[in-house]
Amino acid sequence: MRFTGLALVAGLLAGTVQAQTAPLPMPHRDDVAPAPVAPALIALQDRASHDDTAYAIVAGLTTEVGPRPDGSEAEGRARDWAVARLQALGFANVHVEPFDVPTWQRGAESADVIAPAHQPLHVAGLGNSAPTPPGGLTLPIAYFASYNDLLLAPPGSLTGKIAFVSNAMAPTQDGSSYGSEGRARFMGPSEAARRGAAAIVIRSIGTDHSRAPHTGVTDFAPGVTPIPAAALSVSDAENLERLVKLGKPVVLHLLLDDHQLGMRPSGNVVAEVPGTDPAAGVILIGGHLDSWDLGTGAIDDGAGVAITAAAAHLVQASGPHRRTIRVVWFGDEETGGFGGIAYAKAHAREPHALAAESDLGADRVWRFGTELPTSAAPVVPRLAAALGLLGVVHGAKLVDGGTDVEPMLALGVAGIDLNQSALRYFDWHHTPEDTLDRIDPEQLRQNVAAWATVLAIVADAPEDLTAAKR
Amino acid sequence: MRFTGLALVAGLLAGTVQAQTAPLPMPHRDDVAPAPVAPALIALQDRASHDDTAYAIVAGLTTEVGPRPDGSEAEGRARDWAVARLQALGFANVHVEPFDVPTWQRGAESADVIAPAHQPLHVAGLGNSAPTPPGGLTLPIAYFASYNDLLLAPPGSLTGKIAFVSNAMAPTQDGSSYGSEGRARFMGPSEAARRGAAAIVIRSIGTDHSRAPHTGVTDFAPGVTPIPAAALSVSDAENLERLVKLGKPVVLHLLLDDHQLGMRPSGNVVAEVPGTDPAAGVILIGGHLDSWDLGTGAIDDGAGVAITAAAAHLVQASGPHRRTIRVVWFGDEETGGFGGIAYAKAHAREPHALAAESDLGADRVWRFGTELPTSAAPVVPRLAAALGLLGVVHGAKLVDGGTDVEPMLALGVAGIDLNQSALRYFDWHHTPEDTLDRIDPEQLRQNVAAWATVLAIVADAPEDLTAAKR
Repeated sequence: MRFTGLALVAGLLAGTVQAQTAPLPMPHRDDVAPAPVAPALIALQDRASHDDTAYAIVAGLTTEVGPRPDGSEAEGRARDWAVARLQALGFANVHVEPFDVPTWQRGAESADVIAPAHQPLHVAGLGNSAPTPPGGLTLPIAYFASYNDLLLAPPGSLTGKIAFVSNAMAPTQDGSSYGSEGRARFMGPSEAARRGAAAIVIRSIGTDHSRAPHTGVTDFAPGVTPIPAAALSVSDAENLERLVKLGKPVVLHLLLDDHQLGMRPSGNVVAEVPGTDPAAGVILIGGHLDSWDLGTGAIDDGAGVAITAAAAHLVQASGPHRRTIRVVWFGDEETGGFGGIAYAKAHAREPHALAAESDLGADRVWRFGTELPTSAAPVVPRLAAALGLLGVVHGAKLVDGGTDVEPMLALGVAGIDLNQSALRYFDWHHTPEDTLDRIDPEQLRQNVAAWATVLAIVADAPEDLTAAKR
Repeated sequence: MRFTGLALVAGLLAGTVQAQTAPLPMPHRDDVAPAPVAPALIALQDRASHDDTAYAIVAGLTTEVGPRPDGSEAEGRARDWAVARLQALGFANVHVEPFDVPTWQRGAESADVIAPAHQPLHVAGLGNSAPTPPGGLTLPIAYFASYNDLLLAPPGSLTGKIAFVSNAMAPTQDGSSYGSEGRARFMGPSEAARRGAAAIVIRSIGTDHSRAPHTGVTDFAPGVTPIPAAALSVSDAENLERLVKLGKPVVLHLLLDDHQLGMRPSGNVVAEVPGTDPAAGVILIGGHLDSWDLGTGAIDDGAGVAITAAAAHLVQASGPHRRTIRVVWFGDEETGGFGGIAYAKAHAREPHALAAESDLGADRVWRFGTELPTSAAPVVPRLAAALGLLGVVHGAKLVDGGTDVEPMLALGVAGIDLNQSALRYFDWHHTPEDTLDRIDPEQLRQNVAAWATVLAIVADAPEDLTAAKR
């Protein structure tokens, strides 16, 4: 491939450009005006590239607290740990903003092939799964190669069966295959229940080949009675698929002793770097403190809370800035996004200049996107020039946002995405393998440098960032 | 990260959803209606996954012809080879559509650090580069860490100097870093010339770390006199950067004996699978037959001509179809896109149902995008369901198009992208390392399966694909 431009093409077709003329230089479609990068910003990037504050945070959180499921006692311990650590880092106004969350708890769980012959499978219940009867369910399976195929099954066709949906997920740098393949988990159990299924097992929504099942929340539609719902490891799902394709009926025994515990306490941990101009709007950044129960929540999302706090800490050390930076370590991202909702309820009327989060692991930032008010358009070339030095490509617009800040973005607050590479993330996401050793300290530091760059530019931008987004 | 939906957020903020209710299932933003996948289509995918026609084409072309620069005698031999091979595969109406191209030719080239001490560098001239004086140029360099920095240099500031622009390029699955970092090559020489530079060397636009320089075309703006322009290998550019940063003046000797040869013959090779309904519009697919001179043009773009022809060949073997499939192996993609322009000039008035090309190597297709008329909207869920079985994610819209088919897309013809992973492509793109052994046969077959899927669905779609695009 080379590079061309539509104007050249149009000109040549119209005959206004002669074929013997050399091709014209065309601006790239994502082209932005050149902008100088201040030496102080380059120095900040250099400090970030040698700073291990983020690694120390995620190491501390995963080692001293470990898993911190929503509404659990451990999530409370994580908040205590967070307050102490954020205070020790010199942040101002460190406090917890409590709220209650509907709490689901995993119990004993197992899955076994009963016919054609016994084989144990590695399985994990999905958040919001109903329990099986105490002795478990023993039923034939109805196999679907994809979520698409499940949707094509008629109502009532799954009565007396355990649905088995087994779509594969290929790694994508932008994580988009989680959106498409993840539908089997997000909505598959509800759709299987609508069609009469007694239970559902899915191939894990993951890009690995391992025995570690991937849990995660599932949502039952209003009026649909929850059914037992679980994920098989990718290796087990592929084995089960091969069994199905041998042609004999396959019978599964599934036991899930999962329960809803009702409302339990959760909370957001808030810390600030106070700015000099309160009217300029708060910069809201963060990640989520809660995690799934199977791993220790290193990449999801110990990394995100660590990266954003470490970046704010570096910017604080670089002197006073115009805007207040507010770091929020959200509670309950995983099972309902209630942390982000609680934040929005409490702070919707406060002027915000930006809302951005880090929640896709710890691998390098490869792209940024913006959704800013027209008044703040000159910020974009400054971001592009400075982030370009860290190897970050300029994508045209906000792509993800994220669960924690989505409520604020929905209210019209400006957003910036720093997209991390998701090529490895879904190998370990929501599994027992989400542990500290998955984090590459070098890539983690590149994240901190990218976030510090954004904070330094936005915190002192003379433009109005609180106007309506374009 | 989990998964959420804006409607849930809005409802919770508005108080219409109670916090104790489990979250609602939300359709994914790229969600499409379910669609059955015909058993015949699954069988076609299976045949494609075991078919080595594509590998045989790219092996033959790179072995029997080798490099085939635009306007060269070798490009003519490639056309002869192509006609024979496409006829042997049973295509109809195999012929060449000739046109002339402005032809640039590489001569002797070298770059050496003269001061502070002698060091030879690995270098390759850029297409459209002017020659140096016969003995070469010996001048101090002016270093720019990025193309952005070059643009910030004032007019006249580079007089008597060789500009050295050294931005790095990180790998991206969607190839977007080629668009942003590639500007140093696409437009850097013209911008350096505007500022008075006697010549320019750039860090290769590549994601490797090797001694192989990446060539490629550069475009001088109207009124700008071309200057000598070359790319250093990434390793040599990094070495030169370190020398610059030691603080002593760095002097370079650059010799480029490159020349414009005037207009020379090129041509597009055309082959067809005739359809039963000429009014339904032609399906135009292909890749480009020309290549850069340094490698053998395996990934750029022997793979693309091979993939599209092999897919059309499989679909032809599956029986008669409604629409004619036209496979075009374009000439001159690399130095001006004149092949695509010649095609559009010749065929603009003919009804086309689709224009799509393969020109990003041979690694797996990870995403597809569409730009279709409203009347053809039901084609999208059929594509999504069938391509999903090959691990291809549904991106919302056309992203690339590509140089060869861009003129037809600009005229309003419907487009479909099959985006290949570009994570490795720019390691070897435009270098001596673009050889057959970079092609993974397994991934090449997945490409053929994806293209055959698109062709089979589009060739028989009952919808009107010739209407204006939405």
